[in-house]
Amino acid sequence: MLSEFDLIARFFTRPLRPGSAAALGVGDDCALLAPLTNRQLAISTDMLVEGRHFFPGADPRLLGHKSLAVNLSDLAAMGARPLAFTLALALPAADEAWLAPFAQGMLALADSLDCELVGGDTTKGPLTVSITVFGELPPGMALRRAAARPGDDIWVSGTLGDARLALAALSGEMALDGESLDVAAPRLHAPTPRVALGLALRGVAHAAIDISDGLVGDLGHILKQSGVGATVDVDALPAGPILACQRPELQRAYCMAGGDDYELCFTASSDRRDDVLAAAQASATPVTRIGVIETATGLRLVDAAGKPCSLSLTSFDHFATP
Amino acid sequence: MLSEFDLIARFFTRPLRPGSAAALGVGDDCALLAPLTNRQLAISTDMLVEGRHFFPGADPRLLGHKSLAVNLSDLAAMGARPLAFTLALALPAADEAWLAPFAQGMLALADSLDCELVGGDTTKGPLTVSITVFGELPPGMALRRAAARPGDDIWVSGTLGDARLALAALSGEMALDGESLDVAAPRLHAPTPRVALGLALRGVAHAAIDISDGLVGDLGHILKQSGVGATVDVDALPAGPILACQRPELQRAYCMAGGDDYELCFTASSDRRDDVLAAAQASATPVTRIGVIETATGLRLVDAAGKPCSLSLTSFDHFATP
Repeated sequence: MLSEFDLIARFFTRPLRPGSAAALGVGDDCALLAPLTNRQLAISTDMLVEGRHFFPGADPRLLGHKSLAVNLSDLAAMGARPLAFTLALALPAADEAWLAPFAQGMLALADSLDCELVGGDTTKGPLTVSITVFGELPPGMALRRAAARPGDDIWVSGTLGDARLALAALSGEMALDGESLDVAAPRLHAPTPRVALGLALRGVAHAAIDISDGLVGDLGHILKQSGVGATVDVDALPAGPILACQRPELQRAYCMAGGDDYELCFTASSDRRDDVLAAAQASATPVTRIGVIETATGLRLVDAAGKPCSLSLTSFDHFATP
Repeated sequence: MLSEFDLIARFFTRPLRPGSAAALGVGDDCALLAPLTNRQLAISTDMLVEGRHFFPGADPRLLGHKSLAVNLSDLAAMGARPLAFTLALALPAADEAWLAPFAQGMLALADSLDCELVGGDTTKGPLTVSITVFGELPPGMALRRAAARPGDDIWVSGTLGDARLALAALSGEMALDGESLDVAAPRLHAPTPRVALGLALRGVAHAAIDISDGLVGDLGHILKQSGVGATVDVDALPAGPILACQRPELQRAYCMAGGDDYELCFTASSDRRDDVLAAAQASATPVTRIGVIETATGLRLVDAAGKPCSLSLTSFDHFATP
């Protein structure tokens, strides 16, 4: 059996890439990031637990990708450029057949965004993946949750709800044909962090958040922290291509509160619509305008005709849900 | 029951302290560290799993302290000044009676070192604590594992082995009277990260590492990465006050390979002995000279008379041990 140190060395230690943000990578007491002149460092951390955030027996390559993707999504929502990350990993056993694809899935995504693995910890325990990511941005340019202003448009990137639909199918809540599942499942298992869009929105958007727990809950954080309210047109929500074939009530529910979308929800002044669309084009990321920020607090839902509608939905909460 | 967000807000969200390294703390997609002019950022991450790194039912206040202490110990071993940390926490249930003392233990240590909690993630799962710490240091001043040179003295801080002795007593491996356990147990449960010593050794020491897995294994990392060997005088090892009352074989074994000491092992040129002792005095941290770095690779153990002795010991390894 491989020792802890062998594991780390074999799967996660690589020479630093040219142009790396790191001055020292895996293998010492600490990693070292090179000085960042006049840049803030953005930091985010997420923990994924087997049976809670992913199915037991999940494909290790996809899990490697997703574990990093959900963290990069937080950098994207801040408008930060990824630099580096650390990985803490608890594993029931030192299983090479699991670790190799896990590392490959994670490092392939990391390499595609020049995000260097700079340190980690490996231990025996229930399968748990904890990642901390680092990005940089010019001071004052962060897309803060607290920065939404009355009159701002509300936008979302990509499409919503297909991840939740895949989860429903895979957990036996509902039936979905194989072809549809093949399209929806990657939205659940291999989300695309909207890093390029987040960077393009620097100086354009006001507030931003990534949609991990569902639009209602995540937009709710923007509203609360900005001290504002919003009206959202539920018929404008961009349902994913597979969800779009389902009954309208399910479409609305999964778009509003599905979770695991890892799209960006952001606000921008209504006189910057052209700039938002240019940012979307420059980053090859579709965006949809879904509502407006208002002075009156609370979230109001309307349909395409402007008629109020109500949905009893709550954001996903790890402790409040069964 | 408290929701995930309530939990985070109640126990871990505080206003940023005056002079904080953070420009933005808990509560957004990312935390932001203020620009660090001409400073490298030192980063380390550790994961503690219930039943592996601490006993089930461990005192939450002590666990909060230790979880952060073991990470700060890595900064100390690099000679970095603590700035901030993130916390990812998996908990079986959102239990206020557990979270309050856990947070207090952690934040008391953090405050004593001006180390700001800047972000986190809380989820349901088997009790697991994953922390990532950030420190700063001038470029080129890090105490690297690879920096030991032939002729260097080898030093350790504080005393060794009492943590291992406490573990042996608490796990029923051996008997220890209550008074002795009261002295030894804090070494296991509430280690003191040697941050002040690490800072004082900048520009004085060559290589350093913190002793978490046992002296043999951790010194072994210095030797391997520096491409050197060493001779260590096992009779010079500073046994803890409780271990010092045990039989000599046990003293040697626990000093050499006990683990959980969180002392620093470092090397420095033999003509810098006065500077090492001054650094120890300035940081109010005892240090003991235990051996010498040599060109010939491998670790040689001798007794006080210079006679070779052998110990069959291995470093603690999470996967190789039962």
